[in-house]
Amino acid sequence: MKSFLNVQDLGDLKEALKEAAEIKADRYKYDTLGKNKTLLMVFFNNSLRTRLSTQKAAMNLGMNVIVLDVNAGAWKLETERGVIMDGDKSEHLLEAIPVMGSYCDVIGIRSFAGLTDREYDYAETVYNQFLKYSGKPVFAMETATVHPLQAFADLITIEEYWGQGARGREQEKTNGTSNPLAPCSLSPSPNKPKVVLTWAPHPRALPQAVPNSFAQWMLAADVDFVITHPEGYELDTKFVAGAHVEYDQKKAFEGADFIYAKNWSCPGVTNPDDYGKVLHDYHQMMHWTVDAEHMSWTNNAHFMHCLPVRRNMIVTDDVIEAPTSLVIPEAANREISATVVLKRILQSL
Amino acid sequence: MKSFLNVQDLGDLKEALKEAAEIKADRYKYDTLGKNKTLLMVFFNNSLRTRLSTQKAAMNLGMNVIVLDVNAGAWKLETERGVIMDGDKSEHLLEAIPVMGSYCDVIGIRSFAGLTDREYDYAETVYNQFLKYSGKPVFAMETATVHPLQAFADLITIEEYWGQGARGREQEKTNGTSNPLAPCSLSPSPNKPKVVLTWAPHPRALPQAVPNSFAQWMLAADVDFVITHPEGYELDTKFVAGAHVEYDQKKAFEGADFIYAKNWSCPGVTNPDDYGKVLHDYHQMMHWTVDAEHMSWTNNAHFMHCLPVRRNMIVTDDVIEAPTSLVIPEAANREISATVVLKRILQSL
Amino acid sequence: MKSFLNVQDLGDLKEALKEAAEIKADRYKYDTLGKNKTLLMVFFNNSLRTRLSTQKAAMNLGMNVIVLDVNAGAWKLETERGVIMDGDKSEHLLEAIPVMGSYCDVIGIRSFAGLTDREYDYAETVYNQFLKYSGKPVFAMETATVHPLQAFADLITIEEYWGQGARGREQEKTNGTSNPLAPCSLSPSPNKPKVVLTWAPHPRALPQAVPNSFAQWMLAADVDFVITHPEGYELDTKFVAGAHVEYDQKKAFEGADFIYAKNWSCPGVTNPDDYGKVLHDYHQMMHWTVDAEHMSWTNNAHFMHCLPVRRNMIVTDDVIEAPTSLVIPEAANREISATVVLKRILQSL
Repeated sequence: MKSFLNVQDLGDLKEALKEAAEIKADRYKYDTLGKNKTLLMVFFNNSLRTRLSTQKAAMNLGMNVIVLDVNAGAWKLETERGVIMDGDKSEHLLEAIPVMGSYCDVIGIRSFAGLTDREYDYAETVYNQFLKYSGKPVFAMETATVHPLQAFADLITIEEYWGQGARGREQEKTNGTSNPLAPCSLSPSPNKPKVVLTWAPHPRALPQAVPNSFAQWMLAADVDFVITHPEGYELDTKFVAGAHVEYDQKKAFEGADFIYAKNWSCPGVTNPDDYGKVLHDYHQMMHWTVDAEHMSWTNNAHFMHCLPVRRNMIVTDDVIEAPTSLVIPEAANREISATVVLKRILQSL
Repeated sequence: MKSFLNVQDLGDLKEALKEAAEIKADRYKYDTLGKNKTLLMVFFNNSLRTRLSTQKAAMNLGMNVIVLDVNAGAWKLETERGVIMDGDKSEHLLEAIPVMGSYCDVIGIRSFAGLTDREYDYAETVYNQFLKYSGKPVFAMETATVHPLQAFADLITIEEYWGQGARGREQEKTNGTSNPLAPCSLSPSPNKPKVVLTWAPHPRALPQAVPNSFAQWMLAADVDFVITHPEGYELDTKFVAGAHVEYDQKKAFEGADFIYAKNWSCPGVTNPDDYGKVLHDYHQMMHWTVDAEHMSWTNNAHFMHCLPVRRNMIVTDDVIEAPTSLVIPEAANREISATVVLKRILQSL
Repeated sequence: MKSFLNVQDLGDLKEALKEAAEIKADRYKYDTLGKNKTLLMVFFNNSLRTRLSTQKAAMNLGMNVIVLDVNAGAWKLETERGVIMDGDKSEHLLEAIPVMGSYCDVIGIRSFAGLTDREYDYAETVYNQFLKYSGKPVFAMETATVHPLQAFADLITIEEYWGQGARGREQEKTNGTSNPLAPCSLSPSPNKPKVVLTWAPHPRALPQAVPNSFAQWMLAADVDFVITHPEGYELDTKFVAGAHVEYDQKKAFEGADFIYAKNWSCPGVTNPDDYGKVLHDYHQMMHWTVDAEHMSWTNNAHFMHCLPVRRNMIVTDDVIEAPTSLVIPEAANREISATVVLKRILQSL
C-alpha cells in the first residue's frame, strides 16, 4: 500500500475489518514487524487524537517514530519553479520533501483545508506533493478533504456495536449469534444497520474531511446510509455519489441505528463562491443540535462523533453521556485503524 | 498503585528507599517490565528536569513514551455541564481525558497552581479529573500543591549522604558502617539527621508544591524536621501537621545536617485573601538568603534545593558551589525516584 | 570520542569513510550498540535535516532519544557568577547543564551564531559550556562556527560520486575500478577531484558554520580545494589556512569536479566591525548565482549545497534539478555521518 487516502486504498473492507478484530484482540501481535522502520509524522496542523493514536499504533508494531511539528503558517515552502526566492520562503518543496523521505520508511501527513481555494484543497495538493516527491508510502492523518483513519475507526465501531442495537437484537434472534466482531454481520440485508450522517451547528467554519470520508466509507460498507443537512451543505459527489440525501432531519432519523453528527462548512458544490463559508448564523440552526427528542425518532440509535465535540451545539450533554453514546469507543478504535493501516504499509515495503 | 500524589501512596518508605538503592545500582534491571506499555506525559506547564528524568525513567523500564505539550492556556477544556460551547473552548474534559486514557497505560500530569483560586488549587482539580476520567493510573509530575517525585528524590539523596555528615561520622564510629544506601541508616534515634526547610526570597510568586511535598515526606521519614519562614508563609496543615515551625531562622539552622532552601508564595492559611501573594518586597528579605554565615550556624550541613534556583536570591554562589551542596545529586536522583514509581505502577497494572 | 566539533576529532579520515561505507551498506548493523544509552538533542535553533537525520541515526544504533527544544531566546541562562538573579534569567548554566548531563549518555547541541559578537561566537561559548559542565560526550549539530556532521556527509558524498565524473572516468580507465566507495579513491594524485566552495547571494545574513567546516574537511581530505567569494568574505584562517582563494569565480570554476555553493555573511576577518554583515545588496551580486553558464566552465561538475537552498538566488532551477546535482544524496548522507559519529561516541563510553 503506497497511499492511504480513500476507502479504495484499503481493498476488501471485510478483510480489513477482520484484521481490525484480530489486532484489537492482540494489538502487539505484530510488534516486531516494524523493527528498524521509521514513521515520520508531519503535522501542519494541531492534533490530539491523531497524534497519540497513530504514534501508539506505530509503537504497537515496533516502529521508531519521529514527530515533526510544522508550525501552522511558519514553514513556508516555495512550490513554483522559476521564482527568485528572496522572500519569506526559505526552502522549495522539491528539496524539502525528498529530504524528509530519505530519513524514514513511511510518512503520515496532517494538513487541513485552507477553506479559501476549493480547487487547491480538493486537489489534495500537499498530500500529493508528498506522495510524488518523498519516494515513500504516505498516508493521510486528516488532509484537506479526507480523514480515512477516522472513517475506518468509525466503521470498526459500527461493526462492533451492530448486533447490540434493536435490529441487531432481532438479527440475534434469527441467527443465534451476537458476536459483534463477526465480519459478515453487516451484510445480510434487510439486517443491515441504518446509519445517518447529520449536519449540526458550530460557531466556526470547519472542513469537510470527516463527513467526506465517513460518507465514502459507509457507501462502501453496504449499510443503509442517509445524509441529512440544511440545503446548501451538499457534499462533493466525489464522496457521496449514490447516497440518499434527506433534507428533513426528522425523516432521516426515523428508524436509525447509528446517528453520526458533524458540522461542516459549505463544500461549494452548487456555488463555488460559498466554499468554506458558514451559511447561516448558528443561533438560527440550533434545531439541528442532536438532543433527546431527536434521538427519540430513532431505533434507540447509538450516537457517534469524531471529537472534539462542542457540547450543546452539536449534541446535548444527556445524549453524549448516554450508554448508547460511542464517542469514546470510536476514539479508542483510532489506535486499531492506524495499526491495521501501518501494518499493511509495512508488509508492502 | 493507581495514583501517586502523596507520600502515603508509596506505602512503606524504607522499602521504597531499598528499591531506590537497587535501581540506582542497576537502573536497567527492569528494562523489559515496560515492554508494550506506554507512558503519556501531559505538560500543562514547562519543565526541564521532570520532562527529561521521567522520560529517562520510563525508557529505563523499556516503556514507550508519548509527550503531549499543552501550551499553557491554549488548550481550553470546558469543565461544566450544560454550557453551550460556542466560545473558545473546543472540547470538554469529559471527552478529552478518557480519549487520552485510551491511548496509554500510565499518565503523568504536570499542572501548576494558578495561585488565584486557593480552593481550586488545593482540591487538585486537574489531577483528580485525570484520575477520575482517564481510567488509567496517574502520577504527579508537579501539580497544584505537590511535587512527590522531587520529594522522593530529595529523601533518597538525604539517605545517601547521611552518614557522611558530622552526626553521620559519629554514627559511623559507633556502628562501624558508612554505607550511605543502607536502608535503616535514617532510623536509629538519636542519630537521625536534622533537616531544615527554609524559606528564601524570590522576585516572583511561586507555588507551594515543593515545600508541601518536602514537609510531608520529611515528616513521614522520621528525621528531625524543622521549618523556618517569615510569619505569614505558614504551610497548609494538610502537609505540615505536627511539624516544628521556628520563625527564628538562626535558631532553626543550629545543628542542622541538611538545609533545604525554597521560596514559596503565601499559602493563605491564616488569610485566604493573601493566597499566592508575595508578602514583602524581596529587597527587604535578603537576610533570608542562605549564605556562608547562615551555613556556619549548622553542623556543616549539606545544602539542598530542587532547582531551578536563582543564585544570590535563594543562595549565594559559594554555598551552592561548595562540596557540601547536593543540588546536582538531587536532580540526578529524579531519574531514580521516577523509575521506582513507574516500576511500581507497572507492577500493579 | 568526547567531543565532535572539528575534523581532527574524527581521527583518520579514510578510516572514517570506510566506516561510513560499511554503515551505508547496513545501517542497522550496530542496532544493539546503543541499548540503554540515551541521546539528548538540545536545540537552541530550528532544524529539519539535523533533527530528523540525527534522531534516525541514534535509532539505527538502538539508542533512546530525548529531544529538548529550547525556544530561541526564551531560555535565558545566567552565565556570570555573583549576579543577583532577580531578572528574567531563572537558572544558571552551572546548574542547568550538569542536570541535563545527568539524564543522558551523549549530548548533541544546536546553537547558531548570534552574528553580533564575533569573539563570543568564535569561542564556541555555548558548545564549550556543555563540554565543560555536562560531564558527557558532546557533539555539534551546527554550532556558532562549525557544522561537522554536514561536512562529513559532504565528504562521504564526494567520495561516493568521485569516479563517476570526468576525471573519475579517466581514473577508471587507468585503474580499472569504479567503486565509488573504495576508501582510497580520493588519494592518488593527480587523480584527486577539484572541489570548489563558492559564495552565492542571499537576502539575509547567514552564519559561516557550513563554509568553515566544509573548508576544514576538504583541506583534511586532500582534494584539490579552491574557495571563491567576493572580496570581504574571507573565512577565518582557523578553518582555511593553506586554502587556495581565487576571487575570480570563473577561474575558480575551471576544471572543477564538484561545485559547493553557499552563502555566508562577513566573517569579520579583515574588519571585525563588519562581522555578520551582508556587505552588498544582493541585487548587485546575482552574477554569483550558480547557473548553467557557470557550470559550463567546469569539468561537468556535480552541484552541491547543504540545504535549505533559495532557488534562483544560490542556484538556478535547472542546475539544482540536473542529474549532476547531489543535494538530496548529501542530505541523505547526514544519517550516515551521524550514525558513524554516534557509533564512535558509544564505543568510547
